[in-house]
Amino acid sequence: MEVVATEEEEAEAELKKVPEGSKDAVVLKNLYLSCDPYMRSRMTKHDPPSYNPDFVPGEVITGFGVSKVVDSTHPNFKVGDLVWGTTGWEEYTLITNPLILFKINHPDLPLSYYTGILGMPGFTAYVGFHEIASPKKGEYVFISAAAGAVGQLVGQFAKLLGCYVVGAAGSDEKVELLKNKFGFDDAFNYRKEPDLSLALKRCFPEGIDIYFENVGGAMLEAVLDNMRLHGRISACGMISQYNLLEPEGIRNIVQIIPKRIRMEGFIVSDHFANYRKFEDITVQYIKEGKITYVEDIAEGLEKAPSALIGLFEGKNVGKQVVVVSRE
Amino acid sequence: MEVVATEEEEAEAELKKVPEGSKDAVVLKNLYLSCDPYMRSRMTKHDPPSYNPDFVPGEVITGFGVSKVVDSTHPNFKVGDLVWGTTGWEEYTLITNPLILFKINHPDLPLSYYTGILGMPGFTAYVGFHEIASPKKGEYVFISAAAGAVGQLVGQFAKLLGCYVVGAAGSDEKVELLKNKFGFDDAFNYRKEPDLSLALKRCFPEGIDIYFENVGGAMLEAVLDNMRLHGRISACGMISQYNLLEPEGIRNIVQIIPKRIRMEGFIVSDHFANYRKFEDITVQYIKEGKITYVEDIAEGLEKAPSALIGLFEGKNVGKQVVVVSRE
Repeated sequence: MEVVATEEEEAEAELKKVPEGSKDAVVLKNLYLSCDPYMRSRMTKHDPPSYNPDFVPGEVITGFGVSKVVDSTHPNFKVGDLVWGTTGWEEYTLITNPLILFKINHPDLPLSYYTGILGMPGFTAYVGFHEIASPKKGEYVFISAAAGAVGQLVGQFAKLLGCYVVGAAGSDEKVELLKNKFGFDDAFNYRKEPDLSLALKRCFPEGIDIYFENVGGAMLEAVLDNMRLHGRISACGMISQYNLLEPEGIRNIVQIIPKRIRMEGFIVSDHFANYRKFEDITVQYIKEGKITYVEDIAEGLEKAPSALIGLFEGKNVGKQVVVVSRE
Repeated sequence: MEVVATEEEEAEAELKKVPEGSKDAVVLKNLYLSCDPYMRSRMTKHDPPSYNPDFVPGEVITGFGVSKVVDSTHPNFKVGDLVWGTTGWEEYTLITNPLILFKINHPDLPLSYYTGILGMPGFTAYVGFHEIASPKKGEYVFISAAAGAVGQLVGQFAKLLGCYVVGAAGSDEKVELLKNKFGFDDAFNYRKEPDLSLALKRCFPEGIDIYFENVGGAMLEAVLDNMRLHGRISACGMISQYNLLEPEGIRNIVQIIPKRIRMEGFIVSDHFANYRKFEDITVQYIKEGKITYVEDIAEGLEKAPSALIGLFEGKNVGKQVVVVSRE
């Protein structure tokens, strides 16, 4: 008896194939999707265009993810390859420019790590700390949104270098993680501090050398009040501002002059040429148990929207991942 | 007949001598005093102390000036030496630490230049442009308070390097100077621009690579809107904010991230070890006619307070100097 595929099965089979005539393309089966704060900015129309293309209403959202190649007409990729990079928030995605994908070199580690500690956020932490902040052993380092995907790693990189590290987070549970799991020297729950500047003065009686900026707004003002001479601010993101119609003004920016502060924004994709060096170092740290990592896993593609929105309320504890499929 | 000195004459003679027992000191006769925006901050009480000591009510104000040594117990200084450095706003000043004074190497140039183009403001322009802003030939450079002591030189250094240079100033007279005397490519009167961001877009259709920041506030916001990728902001001062009880907030500081902007504050005194190199270069430019310079001279010590206050209203055209004595 001949087995006849249903229309649905045929349609699905079609999704898994590179369309005929499409050279140098791959089809990805998406496994893990990454929820990242920068995605909020893609929901706003930018004119002139931003470094990241705006989302197009009606089209599939794109973002970083971990995927498996299920079809390929590109010589560098074969069926079964595991990759991370920009993919769609869907089950199968056709990629016509697969050179933007990184092959996964360490599939023995949890694959979801390539949405975080070994992916874009981990590399962001590495670049923003080691390349932008010019850190030195013994310096005082403050990290906001410290329990997030990037912050938890910045703190651990700073501890490995021999810095004194304090983090701010939005719940007592996260503060516990910072102090007891990630090895921060101190941490505080910013929601419970009536005066952020005083909280920082308490944690840094001698001031802050390096601020890894993830939140902006009132926290940035409080930090400027507490920076030391020749301090550096590595500006990675300002999540507190992304959902405001009118951003908060920073009223004490003048302090960068008497304090000789260098404040520098960066975008991790500018640095992707150095990714493999970071990957080698960080995999080694993970295998030696010198770095640990916490993820917040949402199960199923249908959970993706609420998982993404949750970032902006600080609901996630650790890196927010969405599992589409475990293999 | 014996000439008997009056009490007044005796008191004045006393002022011109290093007190007995005071080793390694000099007495200066002050010739030219410099009015500089940073002095405003010394009128505010700082706790912890700022890089510059606060003025002490009842004591003589100090600032940069050009002076002649009229008595000395220091081996490096002899009567008749011309110097520039920190002195008092008075006729004669006792300096017990003369190593903070620079000897004047080029007395053939107008001595008042050592309050400006060859003194602290000129060196500020040099350091802030060449050492902080990392300029490259062909870049787009914007300067606020561009007709002031620092701004006029930044623009000329930038033109000598081959940059496209635009300045903002607060009167049509100053705008004329920028375009026709200092050789700026373009300039505008910010008081006549209803929308600073649009004015900058008009002058820089491709955006700004380097902003030499002298004013802060609304101008800084407008600049951030118009900066190019990998732009640099050399933060020298924010004069628009110094007399405000509540400084204006900068609402678009987040732009430093997508635009990868580096913003850096500096204080010229950190760089004084390199002063002689700057002096050599700039004297050469002056003698070759490659750099020009405009001063606003107030005659007499009694004019000093109003000259200083005038800075904050933009009354001065060019470097504000007070003449105490011409020799």
